[in-house]
Amino acid sequence: MKIIETRQAPNPRRVRIFLAEKGIAVPFEEIDLMKGALKTPEMTRLNPMQRVPILVLDDGTTISETMAICRYFEEIKPEPALFGHSAIGRANVEMWNRRMELGLLTHVSQAFRHTHPAMAHLEVPQVKEWGEANKQKALDVLAMLDHELAGNQFVAGDAYTVADITTLVAIDFMRPARIPVPDALANVKRWQAEVSARPSAKA
Amino acid sequence: MKIIETRQAPNPRRVRIFLAEKGIAVPFEEIDLMKGALKTPEMTRLNPMQRVPILVLDDGTTISETMAICRYFEEIKPEPALFGHSAIGRANVEMWNRRMELGLLTHVSQAFRHTHPAMAHLEVPQVKEWGEANKQKALDVLAMLDHELAGNQFVAGDAYTVADITTLVAIDFMRPARIPVPDALANVKRWQAEVSARPSAKA
Repeated sequence: MKIIETRQAPNPRRVRIFLAEKGIAVPFEEIDLMKGALKTPEMTRLNPMQRVPILVLDDGTTISETMAICRYFEEIKPEPALFGHSAIGRANVEMWNRRMELGLLTHVSQAFRHTHPAMAHLEVPQVKEWGEANKQKALDVLAMLDHELAGNQFVAGDAYTVADITTLVAIDFMRPARIPVPDALANVKRWQAEVSARPSAKA
Repeated sequence: MKIIETRQAPNPRRVRIFLAEKGIAVPFEEIDLMKGALKTPEMTRLNPMQRVPILVLDDGTTISETMAICRYFEEIKPEPALFGHSAIGRANVEMWNRRMELGLLTHVSQAFRHTHPAMAHLEVPQVKEWGEANKQKALDVLAMLDHELAGNQFVAGDAYTVADITTLVAIDFMRPARIPVPDALANVKRWQAEVSARPSAKA
């Protein structure tokens, strides 16, 4: 078993933090996105979407998509449960993970991809107006999150879950995307300090 | 229990098809997006992301996000399994559902939201260059899918799953987004005819 990934992008970091929280060790194989590593015939065979991370099992089976990989490990090692407990609990974690993924991480990534000079040859066409518009969309969701975190220790309630992982990776990615986290968001800052202090945050 | 939704958007249709395949009847409450129904204080309380569908349980608990709602019903009525069987089977379905959601449905939706005149007051700013760029991104993923469907009856393999639901909703939404499905994609056309003939497609 191995995971093909890169230290340069937010999605592989979600898997690394997830595995660290689970206490699962998997060998990582690093590729360099900036050198066109995703476009080779071999990578296209492993994942026709030409994205990382990719989980390669010992029998050659490949699973890509960050959340598919995380869910696979949740099934083979259920505790600590990072997708929640009970039908309604798991629906709640899925809801919050998707809010933070589609509402925050996606907008931060779009801002980065469409405004950063280093992405000009990877994101074609790079649409600066769209990139700038995403900065405010991300901040709107972050303000909503701050309101929620006034009453919750973690993003999806009183337990650390995959929704915290997605949110931490998104917020840390705001720096290269050049979106400052407003100081007024005191609950987000409190939460960020707490989850950043966990050993998994360094994974 | 009820689901607040609209016939005007693709995500609620994913839930309707899912419930039809499961044989689960839930009352629907229709709202009109074009009249600002998502921005009211009551809707914001039910879902701070101001999106539908929203599942409201009898005790007042709310679950939003399409896939969170579908997963909830998968748990309370596991058969027919629309998220797959076994750890690796479920990871495979999640992978394909996400490829079709993030790689196809999202691009079709972005093309619609950023090019259609009716969306000008809902998608602000409407960035036409970004909308147009999404048309080719959607077609690239559809070509990849056509290649896969040469060997598979369904999107995620030999069983109908939530990945087929996401793909059908995305492809049907290409018409209002003004992205013609190329006639050369014979495997996609074969698959589309088959899944469109299921009673759930009318839901």
